Amino acid sequence: MADLTTRAAAKRQQIMDAALAVFLENGYVGASMDQVAALAAVSKQTVYKQFKDKEHLFQSIIDDIGDRVDDPFVELTKDVAETDDVERMIHALAGRFVTTIMDPRVQQIRRLVIGEAARFPDLGRAYWERGFARALVTIADCFARLDERGLLKVEDPQVAANHFAGLLLWIPSNRVMFHGRTDAVSAEELAAFAADGARAFLAAYGTRP
Amino acid sequence: MADLTTRAAAKRQQIMDAALAVFLENGYVGASMDQVAALAAVSKQTVYKQFKDKEHLFQSIIDDIGDRVDDPFVELTKDVAETDDVERMIHALAGRFVTTIMDPRVQQIRRLVIGEAARFPDLGRAYWERGFARALVTIADCFARLDERGLLKVEDPQVAANHFAGLLLWIPSNRVMFHGRTDAVSAEELAAFAADGARAFLAAYGTRP
Repeated sequence: MADLTTRAAAKRQQIMDAALAVFLENGYVGASMDQVAALAAVSKQTVYKQFKDKEHLFQSIIDDIGDRVDDPFVELTKDVAETDDVERMIHALAGRFVTTIMDPRVQQIRRLVIGEAARFPDLGRAYWERGFARALVTIADCFARLDERGLLKVEDPQVAANHFAGLLLWIPSNRVMFHGRTDAVSAEELAAFAADGARAFLAAYGTRP
Repeated sequence: MADLTTRAAAKRQQIMDAALAVFLENGYVGASMDQVAALAAVSKQTVYKQFKDKEHLFQSIIDDIGDRVDDPFVELTKDVAETDDVERMIHALAGRFVTTIMDPRVQQIRRLVIGEAARFPDLGRAYWERGFARALVTIADCFARLDERGLLKVEDPQVAANHFAGLLLWIPSNRVMFHGRTDAVSAEELAAFAADGARAFLAAYGTRP
C-alpha cells in the first residue's frame, strides 16, 4: 500500500512538474491539458482525474510551491526564537530564507503568477497568501518572541518581518525577474545578500549597541 | 515651431500610452501594431514612422518609464546629500521613492516586463538598468556623501541603497504584483510603508543612538 501511495504521489508530482514547464513556456492561457499530458507521458484522462481542469492544476502547483515556501521556516524559527545567540541565528535564518525564496522553481512560478495576475487575480492572491505571507507570519512570531526575551527590539513584528524580507530579497529577486533567468544570481552572491541583509536587520532591530 | 514640436511629442506620447494598454491587455507577443494604431486613433504608418517596429515601440515605452523612475531623484538627492536634518530628509526621500516606484504606470510596465523577461531577456535587463538601477546609483551617491559628512554610517553605499529600496518597496510592490491591481495599496498605506522603512533605515545606518 505504501508503495502504491508513493507511486501515486510521484505521478502527481510528475504531472505538476510537466505542467509548470508547459505554463512557463506558453503562459497560463496558452497552456493546454494535452501538452501537459504529452510532456508528463501520461494519458489526458490521468491528468483530468488527478486535477479536474487547468485551473485546479495551476492551483495545485501554487499550493505545492506555497508549502515549499513556508515549511523550511517552521522548525528553524522555533530554534531562532529560543536561541541565546541571536546574531548567529538571524544570519542562519537569513541564509535559509534567501535560498528558499530564490529557489529556481519558486522564482519561475513567481514570474508566471505575476505575469498572469492582472487576468487571474485570485490565483495571484492565493499564491501570495498561501506561500510568502504565511512564511512572514511564521517569522513575525519568531521576532515577537525574541522581543519578549529582550534579544530584539521589535515594536511591530509584522513590519519587522517585512523589513527582514525586503533587506534580503529585493535585489536578487528583481535581478532574476528582470533578467529572465533563474541563474542571474550566483550562490556566492546570494550568501552576500543574506549576510549584508542580516547585518542591517540586526543594526535596525538588535538590542546591542 | 515650438508648437509643432509639442504636438509631435504629444502624438508620440499618445501612441505610447495606447501601446502600453495594448501590451498589458494582450502581452508582448499578442499585441499588434494594428491594435496600437486603432487605439491611438492614428494611421499605422504614423506608428511605424515614429517607432519602426514593435520591439522599438516597446523599448521606447521602457525608456520613457526608466526616465520617470530616475528623474524625480536627481534634484532631491542633491538636497538630501547637503542637508543638516538627515532624519527629515531621509523620510522625504522615502516618500518620494515609494510614490514614484508605486506609480500605476510603473507597476503595470513592471508586471509586463517580468512576465515577458524569460522570452525577452534583453528588454528586461534594459528596463532594470535604464530605470531602477540608475535610481539606486543616484541614491547610493547621496548616501556616500552623507557618510562623508558624518550623518550616516555607510560602509558600502550601493548595499545601503539596495536596503533602502527593499525596506520601502518589498511588501507594497509584491502586493500589487500578486493582486494584479495597481490600487491594491492605498495612499495611506504607502505613506506608512515609507515612514516605517525610513525609520528602520535610520536605525540601521544612522549615526545617532
